[in-house]
Amino acid sequence: MFGCSDQQTEVAETSATQQSYKWKLVTSWPKNFPGLGRAPETFADYVERMSAGRLTIQVYGAGELVPGFEVFDAVSSGTAQMGHAGSYYWKGKAPAAQIFTAIPFGMNVTEMNAWIHYGGGLELWRELYKPFGVIPFAGGNTGVQMAGWFKKEINSIEDLENLKMRMPGLGAEVLKKVGGMPVALPGGQIFTSLQTGAIDATEWVGPYNDLAFGLHKVADYYYYSGWHEPGAMLEFTVNEEAYRQLPEDLQAIIEVAARAVNQDMLDEYTARNNEALMALQDKHGVKVLPLPDDVMQALKQASLQVMEEQAAADPQFAKVYDSYRKFQRNVSRYHQLSEFEYYKNRQ
Amino acid sequence: MFGCSDQQTEVAETSATQQSYKWKLVTSWPKNFPGLGRAPETFADYVERMSAGRLTIQVYGAGELVPGFEVFDAVSSGTAQMGHAGSYYWKGKAPAAQIFTAIPFGMNVTEMNAWIHYGGGLELWRELYKPFGVIPFAGGNTGVQMAGWFKKEINSIEDLENLKMRMPGLGAEVLKKVGGMPVALPGGQIFTSLQTGAIDATEWVGPYNDLAFGLHKVADYYYYSGWHEPGAMLEFTVNEEAYRQLPEDLQAIIEVAARAVNQDMLDEYTARNNEALMALQDKHGVKVLPLPDDVMQALKQASLQVMEEQAAADPQFAKVYDSYRKFQRNVSRYHQLSEFEYYKNRQ
Repeated sequence: MFGCSDQQTEVAETSATQQSYKWKLVTSWPKNFPGLGRAPETFADYVERMSAGRLTIQVYGAGELVPGFEVFDAVSSGTAQMGHAGSYYWKGKAPAAQIFTAIPFGMNVTEMNAWIHYGGGLELWRELYKPFGVIPFAGGNTGVQMAGWFKKEINSIEDLENLKMRMPGLGAEVLKKVGGMPVALPGGQIFTSLQTGAIDATEWVGPYNDLAFGLHKVADYYYYSGWHEPGAMLEFTVNEEAYRQLPEDLQAIIEVAARAVNQDMLDEYTARNNEALMALQDKHGVKVLPLPDDVMQALKQASLQVMEEQAAADPQFAKVYDSYRKFQRNVSRYHQLSEFEYYKNRQ
Repeated sequence: MFGCSDQQTEVAETSATQQSYKWKLVTSWPKNFPGLGRAPETFADYVERMSAGRLTIQVYGAGELVPGFEVFDAVSSGTAQMGHAGSYYWKGKAPAAQIFTAIPFGMNVTEMNAWIHYGGGLELWRELYKPFGVIPFAGGNTGVQMAGWFKKEINSIEDLENLKMRMPGLGAEVLKKVGGMPVALPGGQIFTSLQTGAIDATEWVGPYNDLAFGLHKVADYYYYSGWHEPGAMLEFTVNEEAYRQLPEDLQAIIEVAARAVNQDMLDEYTARNNEALMALQDKHGVKVLPLPDDVMQALKQASLQVMEEQAAADPQFAKVYDSYRKFQRNVSRYHQLSEFEYYKNRQ
């Protein structure tokens, strides 16, 4: 029995006078949306419990305090102390921000996490947001997404021509390059836009989230794999001034809670995606298909071109992309004979 | 500027009288060993910073306080409040413990994490350790390991016959089933055993750790992929009585710190493995080879037999394996068209 030993030695008493803090966290997601919307709630729960209530965080859904696409501005200005969103929504402020969500044909979730935390990625990200007074943290990942929902079959790259498709970030540039017409829409507007024909196709996340949005009611074809977002990382953002005002223990609590949520979101998606996929196929009659090889190859070539163009146009983009590309070359060589080889061997 | 707003409202003052705690954490690894040994140090750092020094944790390498294979007993008895090890070392106490490290041809790291945290795995694990007064937490993952180091080429399943190979957990049973002779050895004894010929082959972890041990100096052939440990999860264990004596905020700090370290270890391995692999190949002339398909198939068949036998022999094993197997069937179906398909598309 532990109680019989004297290991729990040196129980000291400290008396402290401690401030408590009430923070606001704004998000780009509907309140409590599965996965994406759950992550900030889990974060707030972790922080409150670890700080014994000294730091409480009120989470706001998109539009409750600020619109979903104004999260970054709200955190930068101090309207909210924190945000949860996707970094690629801020490409108008800094094109390189897109890289911290995902690159078409880029790294998957395991590789992204390694680059961010052990490959210099986080330092580059912090440098990029510094002028805005915002500190970023990795804030969850969806894993490989689906390629998206289409109203018609995709049999060749020509089928993407003039296709109006909801597509954010660098994927949008690639779609444009192969003749498509990308449209930027917050999640909450996708269903209606697809229903009214304002768009012909959409990517969103994966089976778990897509089922929740009911996208199968307005499109019949569901394609894989998500070439445009092979491991979409979300972000927590913190107002730098607010962060500095916290004592060091609460700063550490934010850092470690974000790190834990970064894994927790992936765990949730991994556990839920397949059941949702089966429901889509078996209950709702959705046709789940792979994009043809030649379409995938054309998208891959276009992606490489887009990345080169973006790097040529913006020095910050070039700097971040250089770090990302070198890391990917390195890590994918090992994953080829570990993860990929294992998937093959297991079949 | 944040400071101009009144968002950081309701700054209250609380006065608390707080105990502080000094804990011991024993491990199965050499002190500060890369990856495995770093994780408990990172954990201790997180806990100390988040608790403002109210909970400090002294980390002991294997043999410093107790031998590497006595970590569980030390935590159970209260000699140490915490441990960091692999659950499969405790198969003598509960055969089902092995499942919480890895199953041959079982789930990879992403899948294991999802099962543990969203598939009922953690509850089964806690139930298993409950009679010992020990609470387990996921404590890091190496990702897919390498199949191991061999002094000769492996061209057929017959080449494994009478082969003395260091192999822990369920992989050892599989090796026995195909005619090999598994040997249980703590990491620190592998190099000398291979050098003296006490063993003919060994698995250890992957390039990053294997290079650190210098295994290339005593074996020429390095095989992939790690069929026996496709995503080896480590564990933090906590003495239940000690845990109960902590206030709730420190309990939460332990829970969330473990969760964060569970990801951090994988990030480190992912970032470091390829450089180590390149050094092994290019600098040290190691031959890196895939196990032949028919060897892999024979091992897979033997693995399924071993799992059935273990389940038939032990009701706890059967219960945990049933949960694991159902989750794997479900999750691997989605990963087939997400992660695996993406690796193919990216090539």
